[in-house]
Amino acid sequence: MATTTSKGPTGQVVPSVLRAGRILEALAAGPPTATLAELSRRLDMPRSSTLAICNSLLEAGLLLRDADGAYRLGPQVLELGRAYLGQTDLLSEFGRVTSESGFLPAQTLICSVLRGRDVVYVGRRPGASPLGVAYEIGLRLPAHCTASGLAMLSTLDEAELDELYRDAGELEQLTPSSISTPAELRKRLATVRERGYAVDDGETAAAMICLGATVRDDAGAAVGAVAVSMPKGARSEAELADDADELRRLADQISRGLGAP
Amino acid sequence: MATTTSKGPTGQVVPSVLRAGRILEALAAGPPTATLAELSRRLDMPRSSTLAICNSLLEAGLLLRDADGAYRLGPQVLELGRAYLGQTDLLSEFGRVTSESGFLPAQTLICSVLRGRDVVYVGRRPGASPLGVAYEIGLRLPAHCTASGLAMLSTLDEAELDELYRDAGELEQLTPSSISTPAELRKRLATVRERGYAVDDGETAAAMICLGATVRDDAGAAVGAVAVSMPKGARSEAELADDADELRRLADQISRGLGAP
Repeated sequence: MATTTSKGPTGQVVPSVLRAGRILEALAAGPPTATLAELSRRLDMPRSSTLAICNSLLEAGLLLRDADGAYRLGPQVLELGRAYLGQTDLLSEFGRVTSESGFLPAQTLICSVLRGRDVVYVGRRPGASPLGVAYEIGLRLPAHCTASGLAMLSTLDEAELDELYRDAGELEQLTPSSISTPAELRKRLATVRERGYAVDDGETAAAMICLGATVRDDAGAAVGAVAVSMPKGARSEAELADDADELRRLADQISRGLGAP
Repeated sequence: MATTTSKGPTGQVVPSVLRAGRILEALAAGPPTATLAELSRRLDMPRSSTLAICNSLLEAGLLLRDADGAYRLGPQVLELGRAYLGQTDLLSEFGRVTSESGFLPAQTLICSVLRGRDVVYVGRRPGASPLGVAYEIGLRLPAHCTASGLAMLSTLDEAELDELYRDAGELEQLTPSSISTPAELRKRLATVRERGYAVDDGETAAAMICLGATVRDDAGAAVGAVAVSMPKGARSEAELADDADELRRLADQISRGLGAP
């Protein structure tokens, strides 16, 4: 997995390239069209250099010019966006976002996907704590026992759940606290949908609490989940609520990297 | 409708902004990651200025740097692409693409959408010929009589067609050649699917032949059609086949502008 660093070194920059970036950003933020005078005024840039930069962005296809002379984003930005999406997968975004984020540095963060009725762990950001959970990449666990799995299952509709658990029989329990019936699973999934994240309270392993949130792609499909597991009692109720909020933000950030709105 | 001109004036440009555009384009074309040395060599640009441009693009979020120092496209290109899509509609893309294209300059090009069982004409690029067809924007016609309508109907599946024509009764005929039964319509739609475009041969108006092709958006949905109508006999069979090919390319170009792959 290629991990990525943040903005990179703050070495020598080219002011006109930074300005080009600001012009693109301004038109993306809207209003979607702006005349040369408006851009120059809004971004506090000299008119002559704004014109030369816009000419260059036009030539690169990154801008268009309307018949009335106003500038707008050009179709080349769509090509770039599409290329980015083609090059970016769940795992590389998980790596990039967690390496940039200081989220729960002591705990191990996990990235997983749903495969049938199981979750498979595909990525991990190790935590600093010696008490961390030692999940191995490739580990496969029943989805209904884990926070990751519950988060992903909560995105399925009734028909998909029926199909998935039709020939499932009794649900396997990893601990006495694990969900054991399809009815119990459905009830729990309603709670997950309501909260926007899943909690596994001693259901994967005794004395362990785990939070999970879904990652979506540009089509809105749940392509994976991020989760954090902690020894029960390591965090207070209030801290866990904050952790859940932050985990959701982390999942949303990865989702946006994968093209989700 | 805001029509747009092509690349704009070839006035003063900023070489480093053009280079920034080439760096983004090179990474989009792939391979998706490149070191400074590779970029500098591939684009034949001095290493020091390539570094300064990359630093600027990193700062703008348009590039990322991997842990091993290689550059890749950054998530900001996705924001730009999303903004472009939000700002770009069928009509403005039809205006932009047809104003840039020299397609059938003598004939009138039409842009339409499907509303229930009708097509509604929403855009027009007038042709130079005095024999051109005088479609008015807002004109509503039965979809099964027109090339635009047949093109769009051909993207529906059997269930959607059943639903759409369930209470339709006998189909209205604009001319004696118009399709008159749901069975005939289904047979014709199979031909449209096979060819990739629709032909209306005197079915909207006698002695008029019309070609239609579908425009799709980023979700692959048929959001409209482009069509060209000509007095029958104005073009030979071979010329019509060429026109149909070019109309498809025109429709595909508009589709790409709307985010279709």
